Amino acid sequence: MDLEPILEDVSEGELSVAEARERIEGFTRVDDFARFDTRREDRNGVPEVVLAEGKRPADVASIAEQAIEKEDRVIITRIDEETKTALEDVQSSAAEVEWIEQAQIMVLRTSEYEPPVTDGTVAVLTGGTSDIPVAEEAAVTAREMGCEVETIYDVGVAGIHRMFAERHQFDDADCIIVAAGREGALPTVVAGMVDAPVIGLPVSIGYGAGADGKAALLGMLQSCTVLSVVNIDAGFVAGAQAAQAARG
Amino acid sequence: MDLEPILEDVSEGELSVAEARERIEGFTRVDDFARFDTRREDRNGVPEVVLAEGKRPADVASIAEQAIEKEDRVIITRIDEETKTALEDVQSSAAEVEWIEQAQIMVLRTSEYEPPVTDGTVAVLTGGTSDIPVAEEAAVTAREMGCEVETIYDVGVAGIHRMFAERHQFDDADCIIVAAGREGALPTVVAGMVDAPVIGLPVSIGYGAGADGKAALLGMLQSCTVLSVVNIDAGFVAGAQAAQAARG
Amino acid sequence: MDLEPILEDVSEGELSVAEARERIEGFTRVDDFARFDTRREDRNGVPEVVLAEGKRPADVASIAEQAIEKEDRVIITRIDEETKTALEDVQSSAAEVEWIEQAQIMVLRTSEYEPPVTDGTVAVLTGGTSDIPVAEEAAVTAREMGCEVETIYDVGVAGIHRMFAERHQFDDADCIIVAAGREGALPTVVAGMVDAPVIGLPVSIGYGAGADGKAALLGMLQSCTVLSVVNIDAGFVAGAQAAQAARG
Amino acid sequence: MDLEPILEDVSEGELSVAEARERIEGFTRVDDFARFDTRREDRNGVPEVVLAEGKRPADVASIAEQAIEKEDRVIITRIDEETKTALEDVQSSAAEVEWIEQAQIMVLRTSEYEPPVTDGTVAVLTGGTSDIPVAEEAAVTAREMGCEVETIYDVGVAGIHRMFAERHQFDDADCIIVAAGREGALPTVVAGMVDAPVIGLPVSIGYGAGADGKAALLGMLQSCTVLSVVNIDAGFVAGAQAAQAARG
Amino acid sequence: MDLEPILEDVSEGELSVAEARERIEGFTRVDDFARFDTRREDRNGVPEVVLAEGKRPADVASIAEQAIEKEDRVIITRIDEETKTALEDVQSSAAEVEWIEQAQIMVLRTSEYEPPVTDGTVAVLTGGTSDIPVAEEAAVTAREMGCEVETIYDVGVAGIHRMFAERHQFDDADCIIVAAGREGALPTVVAGMVDAPVIGLPVSIGYGAGADGKAALLGMLQSCTVLSVVNIDAGFVAGAQAAQAARG
Amino acid sequence: MDLEPILEDVSEGELSVAEARERIEGFTRVDDFARFDTRREDRNGVPEVVLAEGKRPADVASIAEQAIEKEDRVIITRIDEETKTALEDVQSSAAEVEWIEQAQIMVLRTSEYEPPVTDGTVAVLTGGTSDIPVAEEAAVTAREMGCEVETIYDVGVAGIHRMFAERHQFDDADCIIVAAGREGALPTVVAGMVDAPVIGLPVSIGYGAGADGKAALLGMLQSCTVLSVVNIDAGFVAGAQAAQAARG
Amino acid sequence: MDLEPILEDVSEGELSVAEARERIEGFTRVDDFARFDTRREDRNGVPEVVLAEGKRPADVASIAEQAIEKEDRVIITRIDEETKTALEDVQSSAAEVEWIEQAQIMVLRTSEYEPPVTDGTVAVLTGGTSDIPVAEEAAVTAREMGCEVETIYDVGVAGIHRMFAERHQFDDADCIIVAAGREGALPTVVAGMVDAPVIGLPVSIGYGAGADGKAALLGMLQSCTVLSVVNIDAGFVAGAQAAQAARG
Amino acid sequence: MDLEPILEDVSEGELSVAEARERIEGFTRVDDFARFDTRREDRNGVPEVVLAEGKRPADVASIAEQAIEKEDRVIITRIDEETKTALEDVQSSAAEVEWIEQAQIMVLRTSEYEPPVTDGTVAVLTGGTSDIPVAEEAAVTAREMGCEVETIYDVGVAGIHRMFAERHQFDDADCIIVAAGREGALPTVVAGMVDAPVIGLPVSIGYGAGADGKAALLGMLQSCTVLSVVNIDAGFVAGAQAAQAARG
Repeated sequence: MDLEPILEDVSEGELSVAEARERIEGFTRVDDFARFDTRREDRNGVPEVVLAEGKRPADVASIAEQAIEKEDRVIITRIDEETKTALEDVQSSAAEVEWIEQAQIMVLRTSEYEPPVTDGTVAVLTGGTSDIPVAEEAAVTAREMGCEVETIYDVGVAGIHRMFAERHQFDDADCIIVAAGREGALPTVVAGMVDAPVIGLPVSIGYGAGADGKAALLGMLQSCTVLSVVNIDAGFVAGAQAAQAARG
Repeated sequence: MDLEPILEDVSEGELSVAEARERIEGFTRVDDFARFDTRREDRNGVPEVVLAEGKRPADVASIAEQAIEKEDRVIITRIDEETKTALEDVQSSAAEVEWIEQAQIMVLRTSEYEPPVTDGTVAVLTGGTSDIPVAEEAAVTAREMGCEVETIYDVGVAGIHRMFAERHQFDDADCIIVAAGREGALPTVVAGMVDAPVIGLPVSIGYGAGADGKAALLGMLQSCTVLSVVNIDAGFVAGAQAAQAARG
Repeated sequence: MDLEPILEDVSEGELSVAEARERIEGFTRVDDFARFDTRREDRNGVPEVVLAEGKRPADVASIAEQAIEKEDRVIITRIDEETKTALEDVQSSAAEVEWIEQAQIMVLRTSEYEPPVTDGTVAVLTGGTSDIPVAEEAAVTAREMGCEVETIYDVGVAGIHRMFAERHQFDDADCIIVAAGREGALPTVVAGMVDAPVIGLPVSIGYGAGADGKAALLGMLQSCTVLSVVNIDAGFVAGAQAAQAARG
Repeated sequence: MDLEPILEDVSEGELSVAEARERIEGFTRVDDFARFDTRREDRNGVPEVVLAEGKRPADVASIAEQAIEKEDRVIITRIDEETKTALEDVQSSAAEVEWIEQAQIMVLRTSEYEPPVTDGTVAVLTGGTSDIPVAEEAAVTAREMGCEVETIYDVGVAGIHRMFAERHQFDDADCIIVAAGREGALPTVVAGMVDAPVIGLPVSIGYGAGADGKAALLGMLQSCTVLSVVNIDAGFVAGAQAAQAARG
Repeated sequence: MDLEPILEDVSEGELSVAEARERIEGFTRVDDFARFDTRREDRNGVPEVVLAEGKRPADVASIAEQAIEKEDRVIITRIDEETKTALEDVQSSAAEVEWIEQAQIMVLRTSEYEPPVTDGTVAVLTGGTSDIPVAEEAAVTAREMGCEVETIYDVGVAGIHRMFAERHQFDDADCIIVAAGREGALPTVVAGMVDAPVIGLPVSIGYGAGADGKAALLGMLQSCTVLSVVNIDAGFVAGAQAAQAARG
Repeated sequence: MDLEPILEDVSEGELSVAEARERIEGFTRVDDFARFDTRREDRNGVPEVVLAEGKRPADVASIAEQAIEKEDRVIITRIDEETKTALEDVQSSAAEVEWIEQAQIMVLRTSEYEPPVTDGTVAVLTGGTSDIPVAEEAAVTAREMGCEVETIYDVGVAGIHRMFAERHQFDDADCIIVAAGREGALPTVVAGMVDAPVIGLPVSIGYGAGADGKAALLGMLQSCTVLSVVNIDAGFVAGAQAAQAARG
Repeated sequence: MDLEPILEDVSEGELSVAEARERIEGFTRVDDFARFDTRREDRNGVPEVVLAEGKRPADVASIAEQAIEKEDRVIITRIDEETKTALEDVQSSAAEVEWIEQAQIMVLRTSEYEPPVTDGTVAVLTGGTSDIPVAEEAAVTAREMGCEVETIYDVGVAGIHRMFAERHQFDDADCIIVAAGREGALPTVVAGMVDAPVIGLPVSIGYGAGADGKAALLGMLQSCTVLSVVNIDAGFVAGAQAAQAARG
Repeated sequence: MDLEPILEDVSEGELSVAEARERIEGFTRVDDFARFDTRREDRNGVPEVVLAEGKRPADVASIAEQAIEKEDRVIITRIDEETKTALEDVQSSAAEVEWIEQAQIMVLRTSEYEPPVTDGTVAVLTGGTSDIPVAEEAAVTAREMGCEVETIYDVGVAGIHRMFAERHQFDDADCIIVAAGREGALPTVVAGMVDAPVIGLPVSIGYGAGADGKAALLGMLQSCTVLSVVNIDAGFVAGAQAAQAARG
């Protein structure tokens, strides 16, 4: 880090001591206990995504408010009815509100927001329709990181002709995410056909032994083709890693 | 059970008391502790298969000897070098010795043996070459129960065009066994294409999480197609059940 | 597939381009994301069963509507009060409504529906009364695939004389499904007595170690008799596989 | 404890200080680190059984030597060839050597040994022949605790008529131990037929999911009849508890 | 079974054909699907206990009604508010209603009921106060099977002097049940001090790794003293087995 | 224990028989079933902490009442709205009520309460903000045992510069508690930098494989630095052990 | 596939029927049971790697021979002494033999072999020295796929200053593989510092709970930074995926 | 770090550039791949312990050689016969060789070695004799970190009077380690009696469910007293943490 310009600004009274400290330390103290990492996007090129599930609606709203102020854009995932209501105030202060119904995801942007641009392309496939919410989380993340994203849903191995019929849609992608629950076989079949990196995204559906994505995760780890894997339902991680690989 | 003929034979001195007791009870006392079930093949139509693995060579030989005497045929599986030597005496008393090198299986038959005849056909597929020993155990069992057996090996999902190219070989089978380790995806893909019952046979290969057939077993239980499953490496069970279904 | 008749119909204006595409590809695009597999019943002879559990009532109704339109019959399982209400409209458009109270299953048929006919017979046994809802799912599936189905409930091993007393009811079945929770011993005992294929169907009851069908599943996989197994509570899979085997 | 007689013996020089300390503390210091519990048999009525498996042959011999000196009898289980040789010296100092070949168990007694006498009877059943070594460990323990022991082996549920035929042998026992591996169903069936306490003894046989006694243990814990259970292969614990219950 | 008296009663018109069938078969058909085992108490000496948890209140009431009619007594466990209301009608037809508040257990008896009498004594200990509901289930079961029951609660190993102080209360029991959650150490300590059989009863309390009774169950199975075990929360099984052992 | 003064007080009528019994036995009988351990704080120097989660509000209130009467202070954790209301009466009888909002913990003290004083210092770190409630439970416990406590929250390894920036706050602590969920890496990194004992405190957050603190717990057990561990969410145990080590 | 040139070659006698079949089908039949996938490298750009572990030395040699003949290069991993001897003949027919002692890997190349060239760079880090054999498998794979590979070993979190000191070596890599056993924290720390995709590679070291790479795998899946993961010890998969991402 | 003296030494030629680099970076490069952390003992006060198990004898010897040269002392654990021979050369260069037979541990010291001195005392207890090797590893580590160590072995809960009799030996220790396998109850009982921190050390003995220290680990994590825990068999970690706490 180049300290001199910061210190000069302080000596000239153009930067407060508190702000200078924040810039040097690389984080902001929030409410006496949290430490917001202000250099993360710089270091990793990964946007902050707010997982609403498991948080109180009011907290989601206040985190979203902070995030949009600092980064001019915020992505909020798994929003239920109550949280959606709590977000109404925040929405009104955003220039642009995008609501992805199927996945219960909201993206807010200020008028200053300049989206990143890359020449990376990412394809997102799913085995069934129940995998779509998780797949959308991946797709939105990759798109917000500047990639072009193609989605090809419900092409699982129980009727494998459907995937072959849509092959032209993912054949040239720079990175391919394949979301699947149950036995999770689709990523293996796809990875056997392409030369781009394939990321397996297990989805927590199914019942009985191996339920909740466990069989899918183990199957992808055991794949006889070349595949890397993220945790069950980790759409955000899959999308961010795919974008990192695709923007090359 | 029709008791009268047995009792008449006893009263006429044509049947010893000990043998009559055995017939009525349906089992033979062996060496003061074991009770050999003499009605099993009648009830289930399933031959006795001797699993040599984990038994002492001499014990395998003596079980084989008893079995061939009572049933005119015996199938012995997972035979190592030492056991093979121990079986030499038994072989000499058999009219026919069949040795299946790849699967380390031996079938012995007397000259009296009359093989069962059915019009059932069973196909046995494997994902890779490591699955073959277990698949052969299934194939031999089904064949010895009177079915015609077709084997189609090494057609797994990493290069799925191989399976499509051989489809004519299993399309008309009455029952299909699909053996696979690692992620165990092949049974699901096959079951999505046929209308015969498909039995998934997980194989204990692979390393890391989900190794030793665990991922394969869970994946088959979670299959999004119609599939029943046997335990890991249970080639004999898969073969016997397939024959029961196929001989219909 | 015979492409010529389809293409001729297109050239003669008797088939729209969209419908021709669907027939050739073998699936229908639904609402821009799902791909309904239109050849499944042809390929597998297995009807679509709609699992209501975990779906929103409105979605169940719309899937049921589509299904009845395309296949003249639909089976809906695990229906709660709210879903039952949501299905009222769909019912009114069906010629025949069958409601199986004990298992919360509904079957709807149009007047055009022609049930499949086979000469297969399937017996369905349960260990206790808690296993009945899952057993009924299997029974309905097999019956709808054209098999004659006999049910023999509450004959578990704690009072094993009950099963012996009913043996005449399942002795001649072409395939036998045995549903059991807790220790899941009944399928093993039954399979030791018959020569038809037996399918073990573990049920998610019980508490403590091995609860929720886990002990039952492992016990059936470890069975010392010939048994294949489906996942815990997978009544539909058991019923479909039994019908495939029985209709031989 | 009645201290006075001990202290009087010390004061009269009839008891050394070291021995008095041992009697009061209830244990003996061995080689500066171990503390042999000299009151265990008094408190629990349970003999010391030496598990040879996993111990060095010389250690087994020296433990056996100590034990026979203090208790006039010692039971040693799971003895391999090397250990058997190491025990030769100890044998020569015993008045009576009992060798149970099938279970690789040895019992040594001095001429002073007075066996306990009770009017308890214990029956020990097994599902198969592989369960016998563990069952014998239970049987020997119960017999050495003064019970009359009846063994009924190889009567498992795959051919359940064998168990019914031998029912008279265990019907009047005060306590019944049932050893079983694989799916472990036999204890449940037996417990459904008798009014004596039944102890399930899972055995570590089998392969695949639920192997090594795991399915058997879970099945016994989930039993729909009244059953208590000991750990996998814990023949000694089953035998000792059965004797405690039977000797009433 | 002595068939003649039954058949004579039929021939003399003193017994209906339906009832004769029931007596010979040993079970009653209920509502076309259930088969009530009418010989269980005779065979096992174990009363029917109705577990209300997981059943619909109306079903609990109707099962209770049937049971009291057939056996003159019924024990109902884990009763919530709604079920208690549903049981009001049944109560009114009982001569005696016993309500055990702490354990939410109800025992109903007709005026004809004759309790079994044995000379067995059972002690029930718990580690903490959270173990009491499960312990009471065991205590009620043993008492209803004719044993004298002593309860000694909250004497766990965190303050082990409490157990020593109460030792005189369980020292002479014929059988001892020790209920414990968390690490489940109390049964081991108790079993090291007595010569009666000790049954470990793990309780589903605690959080984190080994929660819900899992650590307690494994610890009891691994106990270095002589202990048999029932499943987590299986108070009824522990009580019934203890009574079987104690009434000796 | 010095019995004479107690017995003298009894003989002089200054102590009731009941109280004398309590002092000698070291516990109080409560409501006929519980046995309150009155010597615990003396023996362990650890205060009683009441975990409200999973208890009925009224029970929490009555336990708190008893505890404050006997120990002049009580700590109640994981208090929900309903319990907070139930505690209102108890609060009114306390001289001092401390409410820790973020962690839902309440501490009540009488005017007689004399806090322990030690010269021990404990630092409590967390990886994220979700770990704070559990960390606060640890912090309050250590503080109530007389230690000075420093908290440094939200300094996890995803932005590790935050922890380095705050290092001066924990470098001289006598004992350090590090709470972390997800992958639980922070305790390992901290323990690699200091010479005080570090206690890892896994927190039950996260989803998918290794969720609910499981990955964190295993990671801490496998740590390549020197670390001891408590169970998932066991803030009280971590705090009490840290205070025991720090007060040295 | 362009069929015409193949068919023309056949018609002109320049291609045998057998070879034409192979090219059209895309696989070679080997010894009557295996089906070598001849299009894999074309489709995936991934070389065949022969895992010697678990194969018979003679089989490794013959697979290596086939592979070098078809692909002019072969990589063999985890070679023990016996296998190394068995490979001597194959070596003699290769133009170039590379032996990587530390990882027991051998690469053989013919004189015709033309290595792929890409501009991708891959960095491979390890936590400790035990992780190196697995890391080398990854490094060799990526290098053989045409990437420049930098290795930075033994920089784990127990002494995290080592990693910071070497940061310049991996800061500009296109893809980073981080191999770690035990608690597996290093990939998370690295991924928090860079914007290239990071692949976690768990290594099967450690003992106790979470041993053999299990804690490492779960920790990487739960990582609070962006990370994808391969199975335990899957060095080849990590290397191949990294090269796919890096060659972009 | 104070850089100036180092740089001055370099400028005056008293320190080579390579050595200066090592001091500034805080690690030594070994053989081109390892990075020996030269500041660890300074930071943590924990000595390097060499675990011989799983390493090649020659490697153990060379690591030991390096370590003794840099730190004047080295501790080597779990030494088998072959490794002991390999260490002969290293021994000859040490001034002092200590061999702890029972635990197969060797400590080597040069004549320059100055042991640390603290006033901390550590007690090490075990449940049985099989726990001693692991306990000795803990004891040696604590002693080598300058603590006085008392060992009290074989005082487990099966004969709990033995522990009470030895209580005076651990009552005043600054920190107590309790090693136990099987059900692992001893640490809980001890922690209920003292006010020093107690560290539970699970040991990998036992068979069946919960074997290999798993039940012991879970039981210690679930302990109802205040206890922290290290991984199974992690004697070194327990000893080092105890010394950190005790040296206060």
